[in-house]
Amino acid sequence: KEFRERPGRLRAAKNLIEHGINNIVCIGGDGSLTGAHLFRKEWDSLLQELVEKKEVTQENASAYKHLNIVGLVGSIDNDFCGTDMTIGTDSALHRIMEAIDCITTTASSHQRCFVLEVMGRHCGYLALVSALGSDADWVFIPEAPPGPGWEDQLCNKLQNTREMGQRLNIIVLAEGAIDSNGKQISSEDVRQLISTRLKYDTRITILGHVQRGGSPSAFDRLLATRMGTEAVLALMEATPTSYPVVIALSGNQTVRVPLMHCVKKTLAVAEAMSERRFKEAQELRGRSFKGNLETYIRLSKLRPKLFSNKQVFNFSINIDLSLQRSNN
Amino acid sequence: KEFRERPGRLRAAKNLIEHGINNIVCIGGDGSLTGAHLFRKEWDSLLQELVEKKEVTQENASAYKHLNIVGLVGSIDNDFCGTDMTIGTDSALHRIMEAIDCITTTASSHQRCFVLEVMGRHCGYLALVSALGSDADWVFIPEAPPGPGWEDQLCNKLQNTREMGQRLNIIVLAEGAIDSNGKQISSEDVRQLISTRLKYDTRITILGHVQRGGSPSAFDRLLATRMGTEAVLALMEATPTSYPVVIALSGNQTVRVPLMHCVKKTLAVAEAMSERRFKEAQELRGRSFKGNLETYIRLSKLRPKLFSNKQVFNFSINIDLSLQRSNN
Amino acid sequence: KEFRERPGRLRAAKNLIEHGINNIVCIGGDGSLTGAHLFRKEWDSLLQELVEKKEVTQENASAYKHLNIVGLVGSIDNDFCGTDMTIGTDSALHRIMEAIDCITTTASSHQRCFVLEVMGRHCGYLALVSALGSDADWVFIPEAPPGPGWEDQLCNKLQNTREMGQRLNIIVLAEGAIDSNGKQISSEDVRQLISTRLKYDTRITILGHVQRGGSPSAFDRLLATRMGTEAVLALMEATPTSYPVVIALSGNQTVRVPLMHCVKKTLAVAEAMSERRFKEAQELRGRSFKGNLETYIRLSKLRPKLFSNKQVFNFSINIDLSLQRSNN
Amino acid sequence: KEFRERPGRLRAAKNLIEHGINNIVCIGGDGSLTGAHLFRKEWDSLLQELVEKKEVTQENASAYKHLNIVGLVGSIDNDFCGTDMTIGTDSALHRIMEAIDCITTTASSHQRCFVLEVMGRHCGYLALVSALGSDADWVFIPEAPPGPGWEDQLCNKLQNTREMGQRLNIIVLAEGAIDSNGKQISSEDVRQLISTRLKYDTRITILGHVQRGGSPSAFDRLLATRMGTEAVLALMEATPTSYPVVIALSGNQTVRVPLMHCVKKTLAVAEAMSERRFKEAQELRGRSFKGNLETYIRLSKLRPKLFSNKQVFNFSINIDLSLQRSNN
Repeated sequence: KEFRERPGRLRAAKNLIEHGINNIVCIGGDGSLTGAHLFRKEWDSLLQELVEKKEVTQENASAYKHLNIVGLVGSIDNDFCGTDMTIGTDSALHRIMEAIDCITTTASSHQRCFVLEVMGRHCGYLALVSALGSDADWVFIPEAPPGPGWEDQLCNKLQNTREMGQRLNIIVLAEGAIDSNGKQISSEDVRQLISTRLKYDTRITILGHVQRGGSPSAFDRLLATRMGTEAVLALMEATPTSYPVVIALSGNQTVRVPLMHCVKKTLAVAEAMSERRFKEAQELRGRSFKGNLETYIRLSKLRPKLFSNKQVFNFSINIDLSLQRSNN
Repeated sequence: KEFRERPGRLRAAKNLIEHGINNIVCIGGDGSLTGAHLFRKEWDSLLQELVEKKEVTQENASAYKHLNIVGLVGSIDNDFCGTDMTIGTDSALHRIMEAIDCITTTASSHQRCFVLEVMGRHCGYLALVSALGSDADWVFIPEAPPGPGWEDQLCNKLQNTREMGQRLNIIVLAEGAIDSNGKQISSEDVRQLISTRLKYDTRITILGHVQRGGSPSAFDRLLATRMGTEAVLALMEATPTSYPVVIALSGNQTVRVPLMHCVKKTLAVAEAMSERRFKEAQELRGRSFKGNLETYIRLSKLRPKLFSNKQVFNFSINIDLSLQRSNN
Repeated sequence: KEFRERPGRLRAAKNLIEHGINNIVCIGGDGSLTGAHLFRKEWDSLLQELVEKKEVTQENASAYKHLNIVGLVGSIDNDFCGTDMTIGTDSALHRIMEAIDCITTTASSHQRCFVLEVMGRHCGYLALVSALGSDADWVFIPEAPPGPGWEDQLCNKLQNTREMGQRLNIIVLAEGAIDSNGKQISSEDVRQLISTRLKYDTRITILGHVQRGGSPSAFDRLLATRMGTEAVLALMEATPTSYPVVIALSGNQTVRVPLMHCVKKTLAVAEAMSERRFKEAQELRGRSFKGNLETYIRLSKLRPKLFSNKQVFNFSINIDLSLQRSNN
Repeated sequence: KEFRERPGRLRAAKNLIEHGINNIVCIGGDGSLTGAHLFRKEWDSLLQELVEKKEVTQENASAYKHLNIVGLVGSIDNDFCGTDMTIGTDSALHRIMEAIDCITTTASSHQRCFVLEVMGRHCGYLALVSALGSDADWVFIPEAPPGPGWEDQLCNKLQNTREMGQRLNIIVLAEGAIDSNGKQISSEDVRQLISTRLKYDTRITILGHVQRGGSPSAFDRLLATRMGTEAVLALMEATPTSYPVVIALSGNQTVRVPLMHCVKKTLAVAEAMSERRFKEAQELRGRSFKGNLETYIRLSKLRPKLFSNKQVFNFSINIDLSLQRSNN
C-alpha cells in the first residue's frame, strides 16, 4: 500500500540499490503492474531525489541508472488484456470443476438444482468456462447481462431439461453478475426465483476463496515456468533503451508485450464495462474469452435444433457428450 | 480389432445404415483415426458390396452415399501431429504433478533421490513437461537420448545440487527412454547408478495406468467441449465433396485440419524416431513440444550462468522460483 | 415417498415376494431405517392382506413368512445414535478439509477472516470436527449455542489471535447454528459482525452439496466394506425369532445393535434439541461427539494457560502444532 | 543418527537444559520411540555426567531432574502395537485409493489386470486394507504368505472373475510380500506369471513415496489433534514418579499406554515374523489388523457360496456392492 505514494516508492528505490538489484520481475495483477510501470517511469527522478537527500551516492546512482522491469500476470480472473491466459486461472478452474463434480454425484440420488457462485466481480471468464466445462444450463456473467424477461427464459429452459429427463440442473453465476440495467443478480435471487416459481429443490454453493488456493494445476505450473524463463531472458537481453514488457501467452507461445499497451487495454475494458458497452468489452477481452463465449452461445442454440431432427444427428451428439464424461 | 479387417468394416457399414447414421465423430489416437480414414476411403466399395450381397437396398445405399467423418484426438501422450494438445494430456500431467507433490513433501524430513517413470513409449511429452513443471534435475525422453558419458554428467549434476543445499532430487524418465545407441534406460538402471555411485537413498515410483485415469482436468474438459462443438459444426457444414478433418488446437483456436495430413505427419515422426533422426523428430513434434524442450534446455544452461554472477541476477531468480511454488 | 403409506408398503411386499427376496439390507439415514422398522413390524399383516386380495398365494406367503432386515447407516452428519461413525461422514469431512486447505494457502499473501458454513441442520458433528482439524478460532454448532454476549467474546478472541501474529482466522459454522434463545446465526450475520466491528476483510464460503459428493474416503470405503460384510453375515445367521439390527461401529469393531434401540435414541436427541436440553443432547450424541467436543473446549482453554507460562510448555506446543501440519 | 550413541544423547540433554525444556512430545515410529525410552532411562546418568564435565551446573541439574516424555506414533504402516491406528496411515490409504480409482476408470475401455505395489516391508496393513476397500482379487502381505501352489490358485481365481464378466482385475502387493518359504514375491514376478500363463494385459504401478506425502486426511488431522491434546495433558499431569507413555487410540478413545509395553510388543511381532510364526504375528498386530484380515478372508469365501444360491442372496449382495461405489 505504501508503494502507492511517492515516499514509499522512494524507499523502495533506496532498498533496491542497497541490495544491488536493477532487474525486477514483477508478478501481480492489474494494480501491481500499473504500479511497476509508474515506478519505472519515475526511476530517474527517484534516483535524483535520493542523491539530493544524500541517501545514495552519486556513484551508486550512476551504476543503477537503468532499471529493468518485466511483468508476469498472476490473476485467477484471466482479466488482463494482452495474454491468452494469466497465471492462476487454470488452477481456479480446477477447484471449480472439483466442486461441480462433487455436486454432480449427488444427482444420482436426488433431483436438484444447484446455483454455483464463482469469483469474478468484473470478469466472467471463470463463470463462462466453468459453465462450458460442466454443461451448465445457464451462466450469468457481467459482460453479457441478460435482458428483460430473463426470469421467464431461465425457468422455461430448466423445465425443458427436466421434461427431457435431466435430473440435475446447474446454474453458474459470477460474483459480479448483473442484469442489463446494471442491477446485481445474487445467487440468493436466483435460488428464490427457482424455488418459488418451479418448486425445485434448489441449493447454493459459494466457493469463495477456495478458488484462490490449493495446489496449482499442471497447466499453471508449466505456464509459470515458461513465463518465468522468458522473463529472465528478457531481463538478460534488456538494453538501456528497452521499455518494460509483460510476458504474455499468445497462441501457445510466450511473447513479450509492452507493459504500457496492456495496462491501457485493460483500463479500456473497465471503462467499457462501467459504461455498459458490453459488446465492446467482450471484444476487448480478447480471443480466448470471445471464443469461449461463442462456443457457449453456439451450444445453447445447437441443442434444440439438433434434438428436432434427431435422425441425422443424435449419434454424433451422443459421442460428443460422452466425450466430456468419458474419464469420470 | 475386427475393424482392422474388411469384413469387420463391412459389418460396421451395414450397422450405420441400419441405424440411420451418416455422420461420425471418431475419437481416438493414431490407430483409430487411421482406421477412420480407411473406412471413409472404402465407403463406396463397402456400399456396393452390401448392395450386391443384398444386405442393403439400392435405395438405402443411395441415401447414405456420403459418409462424413470428423476426428478428435484423444491421447495422453500428446503425440498426434497437427494439434498443439490432444485431449487427455493435461489430465495425465495433472496426475503426475499430484504424485510429484506427494513425493516432494517427504523431502522435508529426509534427503532423497526419486526416479519417477511416466508413460510415453515413443513420445517424451509427458516426461518433458513434468520435468519442467516440477523443476526436476534430469529428464530422459526418447526424442533426446543422452550421449555417451551421461552417467557421469547425471551424477555430477546431482552432486552439485546437493552441495548447493538441495535436499531433494527428482529424475523424470519416460517409459521409452533410450540412450544414443537406442538401448533402453530403465528406472531401475538409473536407481542402481545413483545408489551405487553416490550412495544416495534412491526410490522409484512407476505411476503406470494411474496417469490414464481419474477425473479430467479443467483444461481437458474445456478442450473437449470446444473440439466437440467444432466437430458437430464441421459435420453440419459438410458437403459431398468435403474431405475428413481432424479438429485441432492451434494457437488456442480450434481449427479443422485434413485427417490425411495429420496421419502422414504422425507416421513421419515414427519413422524419424526409428531411424534415430532425433533432431528431425523433435522438429516434427511441433511447436508445443519444441518450445518446451527449448525452455528445459535453457533452464539447465541458465542455472550455472546465473549462479556465477549472483550479484546481478539472484533477485530475479528468487522470484522466478517462488512463482512456481507460491500456491503450494 | 409412497413407502410412507401402507398401500406403498403393500406393493413393496408384493414386489419382494415376486422377486424371491426375503433378506434386505437397508442403507439410509434416520428416515429410511425407521421406515424399515415399520415395514418389518407390519410384514405379517401385509402378507395376510396380499393373500386376501389374492395377489399372493398362500404357499408363497408361507415361504416368505420371515423377512430379515439389517440396517446400515449412511449419513454425512454422523447423527445416528448407536454407531461411532456413519458411512459418509469421513468423506464429507475430507471435502471440508480440502476447502480449508485451499483457503489457508491464500493467507500467505493476505490477512483475512473466513466464515465457513458446513452442513448440519440439527447436528454439529461436521462443524465441530472440522474446527478441531483445522485449528479454527471459533465454531458454531446447534448442540452448544453460545450464550448472551458471544459477539464480544468472538471479537475479543479474534483480536487476541491477530495480536499474537496470526494472519488467518477461520470460523466454522454449522447450517443450523443458533444462539441460546434458539435464534438462527447465519454466516452472513457473522461476516457482518466482524466486518463492522473489527474492520477485518471477511469472506464467506458455503460448501453446500459439495460436501455430499466426490469420491469416498479410504476410511468410508473400509467402513462400508466391513459393515456390508457384517450385514450379510447377520442375514445369513438370522433365525425366525431374530429382530432387525443395525450394523454399528463401536470402538473400532463392527457390532449388531437392535434397530429399535437406535431409532428411539435418535428420536430422543431430536426431542432434547427441540426443547433446548443441550447438555442432554450432547450426552445422547454418544462418545465420539462428546470426546471431540471436550477436546475442542480443552484446546480453547489450554491455549491461554499455556501461553502464560511459556517457559515450561512452549516446546511441547510447537511440536503439537507441527504435527497437524507436518504433511502439508 | 547421532542420537543412537551416548555422546549424541549427552549433547541432547545439554541442549534441553539450556533451552529450559523438561517436557518432550516425541513423534515417530518404532525407532524414535525406542530411542526416547532409552533417553529417559539414562536421564539421571546423563545429568550426572554433564555436571561432572562442568557443562551444566548442579543447580540446573537439580531443576531439570525430572524429564517427562510422551510419545505419539507417526507411521504410515500402522505397525505399532498398542494403538488401533498410527498417525499417517489413513492418509497413505487415501493416496492408494486415489491411485486405485484412477486405474479403475481405465477399465471402462480396456480389459486389464493391474498389480499395485504398496509400502510395507514388514507390515501388510496398507495392502490388506487397500485390497478390502478396492475389492481387489488378491492381496499379498508378509503376515499371511501364500502356500505352495498359489500361482495356480491366483490364475484360477482371475479366470473365474473374467468368466463372470469382470473386466478389471486388481492385485495388491505389499513391498515385503513373501511366500511361505520366506522368498520374496515381487510385483514383476506376479506380472510375468499372469502375462505368461493367462496372456492378460498386465500392468504394474509402484506408488513408492507418493504414499508418504500429500495433504493429510481428515481422519489423520483429527487423530493428530486429539492425540496431541492428550499428550499435552499427560505432560501437565506428569509427576516425578510417572513413567513415559504413548498416546494410543483404543476403540475410538485416546488412552495412555506405557511406552515400554508398546516397544516390547512391537519387538515381539518382529520376532514372530522373522521366525515365520505368522499366526502369532497376526494375533500380535492387534484387533484392527485381525478384524480386517478376517473380513477379507470372509469376503473371499462368501463370494462363491453366495453366487451358488443366487435366489436367496443376490439382492443383498447387489446392495453391498453398490454401497462401495455409490459415491464414485
